[in-house]
Amino acid sequence: MSLVVLKFGGTSVGSCEKIIKVAKLIKKYHKKKNKIIVVSSAMSGVTNDLIKKSKTISNKFEKSEYDVLVSAGEQIACSLLAGSLMDIGLKSRSWLSWQLPILTEGNHASSRIKKINTKEVLDFINKGGIPVITGFQGISINKRITTLGRGGSDSSAIAIAKFFNADSCIIYTDVEGVYTTDPKVNLRAKKINKISYEEMLEMASLGTKVMQPSSIQDAMLNNITIDVKSTFSKKSGTKITIENDDFNNKVVTGIAYTKNDAKITLVSVVDKPGVAANIFKPLANNEINVDMVVQNISANGKETDITFTVKREDIKNSLKLLKKNNKISYKKIIQDDKVSKISIIGVGMISSPGVTYRMFKALAKKKINIMVISTSEIKISVLINQKHTNEAVKVLHQEFNLD
Amino acid sequence: MSLVVLKFGGTSVGSCEKIIKVAKLIKKYHKKKNKIIVVSSAMSGVTNDLIKKSKTISNKFEKSEYDVLVSAGEQIACSLLAGSLMDIGLKSRSWLSWQLPILTEGNHASSRIKKINTKEVLDFINKGGIPVITGFQGISINKRITTLGRGGSDSSAIAIAKFFNADSCIIYTDVEGVYTTDPKVNLRAKKINKISYEEMLEMASLGTKVMQPSSIQDAMLNNITIDVKSTFSKKSGTKITIENDDFNNKVVTGIAYTKNDAKITLVSVVDKPGVAANIFKPLANNEINVDMVVQNISANGKETDITFTVKREDIKNSLKLLKKNNKISYKKIIQDDKVSKISIIGVGMISSPGVTYRMFKALAKKKINIMVISTSEIKISVLINQKHTNEAVKVLHQEFNLD
Repeated sequence: MSLVVLKFGGTSVGSCEKIIKVAKLIKKYHKKKNKIIVVSSAMSGVTNDLIKKSKTISNKFEKSEYDVLVSAGEQIACSLLAGSLMDIGLKSRSWLSWQLPILTEGNHASSRIKKINTKEVLDFINKGGIPVITGFQGISINKRITTLGRGGSDSSAIAIAKFFNADSCIIYTDVEGVYTTDPKVNLRAKKINKISYEEMLEMASLGTKVMQPSSIQDAMLNNITIDVKSTFSKKSGTKITIENDDFNNKVVTGIAYTKNDAKITLVSVVDKPGVAANIFKPLANNEINVDMVVQNISANGKETDITFTVKREDIKNSLKLLKKNNKISYKKIIQDDKVSKISIIGVGMISSPGVTYRMFKALAKKKINIMVISTSEIKISVLINQKHTNEAVKVLHQEFNLD
Repeated sequence: MSLVVLKFGGTSVGSCEKIIKVAKLIKKYHKKKNKIIVVSSAMSGVTNDLIKKSKTISNKFEKSEYDVLVSAGEQIACSLLAGSLMDIGLKSRSWLSWQLPILTEGNHASSRIKKINTKEVLDFINKGGIPVITGFQGISINKRITTLGRGGSDSSAIAIAKFFNADSCIIYTDVEGVYTTDPKVNLRAKKINKISYEEMLEMASLGTKVMQPSSIQDAMLNNITIDVKSTFSKKSGTKITIENDDFNNKVVTGIAYTKNDAKITLVSVVDKPGVAANIFKPLANNEINVDMVVQNISANGKETDITFTVKREDIKNSLKLLKKNNKISYKKIIQDDKVSKISIIGVGMISSPGVTYRMFKALAKKKINIMVISTSEIKISVLINQKHTNEAVKVLHQEFNLD
């Protein structure tokens, strides 16, 4: 008898009608003699509505109260789902994070799960019960409600799978799995049946919105196999697991892209030790996330050009911080907020020479100019003009036989 | 330095804008060097929306999960209010019932507060903090969330005033206080400045919707003076307190009425010991509340007519239960679901003979027929045809010098 964690996202429990459907789906698992733990997000829209309310009250709404506020969302969804399970004859009850408890550490609105007390819930499961646990939240050591930050319900599901020693964790969502690229951009996108944690991590952090990177990392560290499935489709989903011989032999597993980057170039920066640190420290202090960084070696050994990308919403603030930074000296700043990052990802790359060349050739053939290049062992990212995004995704999808 | 409990009803915190106004009102109390405990209901509409959701899921939605569900309403309101207080520079935080905890006993959805742990909150107050405590809810001995039933936030406020030994309890609501009768029915209705617990109890249970009877009873038993005030008006409200010489000398303090009663008469019931019990037992078992009961002494000692009232929504079910009740025997059932109960209330009645006569004469003058009469020490209730309700209220209001 295996223990399965079933996690339902906001759209899966987005209405009472959908909650009733989810309850029926859970009943099917139960009939197959599985032991089940259900983890639920808030009904879609509810969290956003609560956040909007907090912003109406104050644009610097206290984070400790923000956590109390938004955690009500999962409380509502879990009680409705537990009630729905009981309505169709199953033994169920909701567990709020303080009732287990799920202990967290770190700051309000961005806490991490540290420990979960499993005793009460395990007793309930062993008596044939189906616990429905609130995702996204926990309590701090001093009994205040905390939340894990957006997308944190996945983290909850992975942590619950870990502490309860579950055999598998199924993430039910509104897509059928992980695709070779965004189906909205390329109709030839295909569902990936199996993907390694590492590839999924790159896919996730590069703009495939299926799961948060931190959740995948937690699963990888604890060797928990994740299945990503659609709640309202019977099709098989995508399995995220450790790489093994069973994997397909494709060099590239998927193409990811982002559309909200901005590029900043500092021209002729005086090149001396510590200059990069001096540039990026004020940005980091202001919670501006710098992504790609490229520095050319200067010809004369005295000056260099440094290019990096930030999220588009951060560009104004970044430029302000750079201009008032008196620890650096440069000739001018060039900015471009109409750029996209296209990435090809695949563990097969490590053993396949020439992938970089194939990528650049394919883009060149379509006259797409590459502005910045950044690589890791299992991915290559390039920055291009935003207007070529869809075309670039298509040509690379074809080049690496994903069509 | 006195400790004041300030309780805000659903309409008082009905929007983010209103919550900001309430925060400013609390700040005024704080400036006057008061120690304050805030108790809040859910934002108006939220509880009803959650109940609607539970009904969409199931028409027999489990009460334990219902409590988890609806308690989210106060959680939302209290976090927003605490956040709003912090936004205007006050030290504040929300306390959910499990965080104190507020221990309850009794069934889900109709629990009673048994004990409140005051330590943490008192420490916070003594450090200049303003705690915002969720009304309407508590936890059971086994750590499940419980609720007190509708209107239970008043009960919470009274219980909090009791356990914290508060000097006063102010109920902020959407009316300016308790009136001599419903201002919607009689424009000459006047606000009562001071009313005794006993009178208020009769007023409350007879259809004046300002406060729930059980809360008033709790306040009376613990000798807690209640002020009922409007949140968004500067006018003084109504003080509910013990009767003393300070009170006005009016015989009648107020006129209450209900509009959703139904009358049932069992004609020629075989009159033997235990017959009344046999009639009312099945009704009680089905949670049908029987209000006025009148039984005429039978002339021959063998048969009698029994008339009683139930809430209009219960009449169908009542008739069904009576008809299948084989422990009673009668000639026929007469029903009338177009009746109203009009009551005059006042502690002054005890020492004023002739009040009953004045009431009947006033109604007779307007040709309003009295169907059933029921009296207690401080009130007289009559059942009349519903169409005469407003006229009866008006004539009695005038008769007893309340205009």
